[in-house]
Amino acid sequence: MKAARLYDYDPKMNVQLKIEEVKAPTITAPDEVIVRVGAAGLCRTDLHIIEGVWKPTMDPEGTLLPYIMGHENAGWVEEIGSGVRSVKRGDAVICHPFRSCGICLNCRHGEDMYCDNGQFPGLGMNGGFAEYFITSERSLIKLNANVTPIEVAPLADAGITAYRAAKRAAKLLRPGSYCVLLGIGGLGHIALQSLHAISGCRIIAVDREPAARVLAKDLGADFILDGGPNVIEEVSQITGGGAHVVIDFVGELGVENICWKMVRKGGQLFVVGYGGNINVPTAHLVIEEINIGGSLVGNFTELVELMELNADGKVKMHYTEYNLASINTALDDFKNRRFTGRGVIVP
Amino acid sequence: MKAARLYDYDPKMNVQLKIEEVKAPTITAPDEVIVRVGAAGLCRTDLHIIEGVWKPTMDPEGTLLPYIMGHENAGWVEEIGSGVRSVKRGDAVICHPFRSCGICLNCRHGEDMYCDNGQFPGLGMNGGFAEYFITSERSLIKLNANVTPIEVAPLADAGITAYRAAKRAAKLLRPGSYCVLLGIGGLGHIALQSLHAISGCRIIAVDREPAARVLAKDLGADFILDGGPNVIEEVSQITGGGAHVVIDFVGELGVENICWKMVRKGGQLFVVGYGGNINVPTAHLVIEEINIGGSLVGNFTELVELMELNADGKVKMHYTEYNLASINTALDDFKNRRFTGRGVIVP
Amino acid sequence: MKAARLYDYDPKMNVQLKIEEVKAPTITAPDEVIVRVGAAGLCRTDLHIIEGVWKPTMDPEGTLLPYIMGHENAGWVEEIGSGVRSVKRGDAVICHPFRSCGICLNCRHGEDMYCDNGQFPGLGMNGGFAEYFITSERSLIKLNANVTPIEVAPLADAGITAYRAAKRAAKLLRPGSYCVLLGIGGLGHIALQSLHAISGCRIIAVDREPAARVLAKDLGADFILDGGPNVIEEVSQITGGGAHVVIDFVGELGVENICWKMVRKGGQLFVVGYGGNINVPTAHLVIEEINIGGSLVGNFTELVELMELNADGKVKMHYTEYNLASINTALDDFKNRRFTGRGVIVP
Amino acid sequence: MKAARLYDYDPKMNVQLKIEEVKAPTITAPDEVIVRVGAAGLCRTDLHIIEGVWKPTMDPEGTLLPYIMGHENAGWVEEIGSGVRSVKRGDAVICHPFRSCGICLNCRHGEDMYCDNGQFPGLGMNGGFAEYFITSERSLIKLNANVTPIEVAPLADAGITAYRAAKRAAKLLRPGSYCVLLGIGGLGHIALQSLHAISGCRIIAVDREPAARVLAKDLGADFILDGGPNVIEEVSQITGGGAHVVIDFVGELGVENICWKMVRKGGQLFVVGYGGNINVPTAHLVIEEINIGGSLVGNFTELVELMELNADGKVKMHYTEYNLASINTALDDFKNRRFTGRGVIVP
Ligand SMILES: [Zn+2]
Ligand SMILES: [Zn+2]
Ligand SMILES: [Zn+2]
Ligand SMILES: [Zn+2]
Ligand SMILES: [Zn+2]
Ligand SMILES: [Zn+2]
Ligand SMILES: [Zn+2]
Ligand SMILES: [Zn+2]
Ligand SMILES: [Zn+2]
Ligand SMILES: [Zn+2]
Repeated sequence: MKAARLYDYDPKMNVQLKIEEVKAPTITAPDEVIVRVGAAGLCRTDLHIIEGVWKPTMDPEGTLLPYIMGHENAGWVEEIGSGVRSVKRGDAVICHPFRSCGICLNCRHGEDMYCDNGQFPGLGMNGGFAEYFITSERSLIKLNANVTPIEVAPLADAGITAYRAAKRAAKLLRPGSYCVLLGIGGLGHIALQSLHAISGCRIIAVDREPAARVLAKDLGADFILDGGPNVIEEVSQITGGGAHVVIDFVGELGVENICWKMVRKGGQLFVVGYGGNINVPTAHLVIEEINIGGSLVGNFTELVELMELNADGKVKMHYTEYNLASINTALDDFKNRRFTGRGVIVP
Repeated sequence: MKAARLYDYDPKMNVQLKIEEVKAPTITAPDEVIVRVGAAGLCRTDLHIIEGVWKPTMDPEGTLLPYIMGHENAGWVEEIGSGVRSVKRGDAVICHPFRSCGICLNCRHGEDMYCDNGQFPGLGMNGGFAEYFITSERSLIKLNANVTPIEVAPLADAGITAYRAAKRAAKLLRPGSYCVLLGIGGLGHIALQSLHAISGCRIIAVDREPAARVLAKDLGADFILDGGPNVIEEVSQITGGGAHVVIDFVGELGVENICWKMVRKGGQLFVVGYGGNINVPTAHLVIEEINIGGSLVGNFTELVELMELNADGKVKMHYTEYNLASINTALDDFKNRRFTGRGVIVP
Repeated sequence: MKAARLYDYDPKMNVQLKIEEVKAPTITAPDEVIVRVGAAGLCRTDLHIIEGVWKPTMDPEGTLLPYIMGHENAGWVEEIGSGVRSVKRGDAVICHPFRSCGICLNCRHGEDMYCDNGQFPGLGMNGGFAEYFITSERSLIKLNANVTPIEVAPLADAGITAYRAAKRAAKLLRPGSYCVLLGIGGLGHIALQSLHAISGCRIIAVDREPAARVLAKDLGADFILDGGPNVIEEVSQITGGGAHVVIDFVGELGVENICWKMVRKGGQLFVVGYGGNINVPTAHLVIEEINIGGSLVGNFTELVELMELNADGKVKMHYTEYNLASINTALDDFKNRRFTGRGVIVP
Repeated sequence: MKAARLYDYDPKMNVQLKIEEVKAPTITAPDEVIVRVGAAGLCRTDLHIIEGVWKPTMDPEGTLLPYIMGHENAGWVEEIGSGVRSVKRGDAVICHPFRSCGICLNCRHGEDMYCDNGQFPGLGMNGGFAEYFITSERSLIKLNANVTPIEVAPLADAGITAYRAAKRAAKLLRPGSYCVLLGIGGLGHIALQSLHAISGCRIIAVDREPAARVLAKDLGADFILDGGPNVIEEVSQITGGGAHVVIDFVGELGVENICWKMVRKGGQLFVVGYGGNINVPTAHLVIEEINIGGSLVGNFTELVELMELNADGKVKMHYTEYNLASINTALDDFKNRRFTGRGVIVP
């Protein structure tokens, strides 16, 4: 099959994926499924992989390369293992990015991302920048009728990360409450739509990019700010003393220490983007009684819910399409922010 | 002041309220507030009062009549007691129907309707079918700018009853879940809008009246049923085995024993309307693991939330206006279903 | 292997299980596990099976008999299927009674008992009144060190049914709240210990049997009642107006319609026992705003939690031991209440 | 009346309170209550007041001194305002430390400590190191029979701070989960007892003081650590990868940055003590998906619950008694840790 493979890590990202013919994957366990890739989302994590950020975790022995990235996949079932019952050849599916075991206690609590025995196609093993890739039955959700893989592939990772944060936020928000979203990019624009769908709160969208602010407005944000130096004061004015919830999709460049100052007494900051360090006085935490918590990729049931919102027309992914042969252009455009929303590779 | 007073109970409701001049109320305690009535909603409870249904509870000694009904009130603050700090003369307000004490443990838990020492203007004491009525500071919510009393008065009781049920439902509903609303009248149409605002679920609206079904469609119900003899089977088909939540705004005439049969394994029936008896095998409760629970008038904070949804344009009350002099016509039209939505009296 | 098999249904239960030599089970799927039975609890469900109550559900074609009952099993792993990773031969285990699929949405939400594709050893297929029985990897929990199968087998079903109800109750109970337990038998005595362990509420134990009341006292119930004709009034006196939660382990013989009258405004009745019909006015449900809900067998994670409480010495099963050859005596003693706590069969 | 008054702030705390005769307080509003002080707890906050830490907040104009500290009060109602209904002269009461308004939205949500219009006797106004002090009806809880003020006074502030954290923790803990308590002093020993009463988790108590570790053992901690340099590793060993919840009663001296490293994937750190700064990589927050949140003084309903646990014998305050004339000795002993548990002043 055709695939794009990474041959070298490079902190400066001056590498090209090689488009080449490789052996297609084969079933080796009863719960495995081969998926014919319909579309695979490009993710900031892919850039980090190329930079070598994930090498210590995913490739400690240095034996992984060359390999195929791509962890935001949707397509059609090509072949199933002997124990698979819930899908059959030809079914259109989206793939939760993590192959969880279903047996460990974390899996039993539904927290697939905490699985003690998980595998991550596209990170520690071959992924979806190819014609086929292999995953397990537990990762698959059948697409609703009339939904095609390319419309939804990035929901598999970017989408559920945003949705999980939005869902956790919604539990804390009442009508009349305010939620700040920092960063209306690939994740933020999904969080915005999700919040509107599942919560009656008011949304304050913050982004330094004019194009992102236009998108936020189109998607119905109640207030839109440009994230200038007065942003804390602006949020305080709008909210009468601070937001009930702030979701930070940036998590670095100083944003991480602006965010907790926007939170109202008793409120919550969810940190989704990362890179920086939060430095907060315990006295502030206690007297304001605020919470600061990380939020990870969503679990399987959250992907199910997001697909339902998508099927109902309530959450849509904005994307730009590239074919597999152009993946290096796509990566280049991504690094240089030449497209809005999400880039998607079609083999 | 002018007021409409009830002089007799009559199971057949062949009574006329007398429009007459009576003494205006005066402040007798530091927390009291006199409200100039802007609008007062007509409620099925008013019909029940006339029938004598509430006499044993609210008028056991038979000393209440003649008195002024009207418990869904909004207007302007006319005069405040010496201890009142949060409102001042001229403020536009909506009035939570129950005067709670703020001291008992139920009040401290925010459950105003469970208050050990509450009073109910319009039931056990004079209410708002008059130019003025008296309530307490704890009952008042200032209206958002640009909101007028007549647009919102029935939210004070009908509205929060519907909203409370919708809010309890929303906690149990995920995207992709189904909620059945039985009865799209004064309460049901508020529940429908509330659910849309705070939950990503799918809504199945059921009503025997064509006009109510048209309203349900206008308000965005996902499925609309006429409540015929196959309704349980129709719900089962749409939902793939039963609804996650059913809200019954009827509660009598046999509907009460259809509702629990629509509930899916692990699901919930909220009963808001009443009159009938539920008869359910314990084996069904256990094997299906369903819940059946009553839902009462909302508390103060729920009225605050509903007013925020209203201010944001997400929930609107449909109403027909009558002036106080025509209140007997209004009651007659109500009994004979000559208007849709809610009837509102303006003094 | 030796096994006790049922050959006939009989509403009067005048049947004897046959102790006979049968073929031991063999692995036929990669996730299967053969367990050498250490102990198998006797359950009221076994009596119901003999009576034929479960025939329409579990044996609609009439092809099941002769078969081996026994669904409350603990023992040692004897043999594992090719895909099993989490246990190995020799491990001491307790077996969740339901073989859930791990794939359907209910399983993904952790609600094993709602599984769309489940199997029930001891009901619709051979169970544990034998030397060996077959189940699946997903059903198994390794025993903590120093715990033996006989001490815990009935926790696998009776235990988690009681624990699930206690856990749901605990979420609704604060220090100073009251919980009524009706029936301090095999389930009730586990619920009592569980509630003490996980909640700071006060417990009112009700049982008509003096021996059960003694047990309740030993286990630390705060109040003990004999369930006589004044029980509603007695509960109202103790609680100052009704219990916050009532758990009914009887569910028939009129108890089911006493229970909801003991519930305080805003409170909850959990129905665990069954057989009778609840008949309640919707007006009572609404005005008192009470909830009535069934409670089923606990899921896998609840069995994990109960085993932890057991390992910590906080919950212990009271039982009487019988060997497999005496199983008909055990059934007879059970029918005639000749033992307290739970009967356990040892092959 | 006799009172101990503070005349000067001093960062070195070289000041003596003056025991002198001052005018007793008088009722000036309908909701006020004068309490004859039975006992008043000494608090670290009192030391901070003397140091001047609270001057910017509570005494910005510098007009407060001389004044009477003491915010952990219990005693007997001496006189009530005209609007007070729930207590009468002679009632034994404990006093929630904050006089909340009961009207603002925060009060309506039951979060008394967030009240927009609150007052804090013993901080910004005279408190309980005197024969009498003045508070409001909303602050009072009647003592259960047989409970005397001296046994419970510090529960009014130290107690509910610990209880609130324990209650928030309990919501996150299952049987088999681990909770670390750092600091088994005045607050920690209440948290330990509270957790045991309301949760089935396992408790790891950490304290550098041998006497505190002995107390932890007496109160039933499951594991006891001395907080040496290997404490993170020790906790990881016991818990198999980190605690589900950590409660930090220290919050300074470096402890604050040890605590979040003890938290397991998906777990929570509650910060109660303060003084230091938390410095945490956003990457750690996200990948481990942990939460870090401050926890404040409990609200009124939490004090009610704690008093119920106390009445049931499940939570007891350890204290040392001083009479009012010896208050400077008490302060000195407190600064030099000459007593364990809590110091209590009796006028
Ligand atoms: Zn990604
Ligand atoms: Zn797993
Ligand atoms: Zn009404
Ligand atoms: Zn009626
Ligand atoms: Zn009250
Ligand atoms: Zn059983
Ligand atoms: Zn399943
Ligand atoms: Zn204090
Ligand atoms: Zn200090
Ligand atoms: Zn307040």
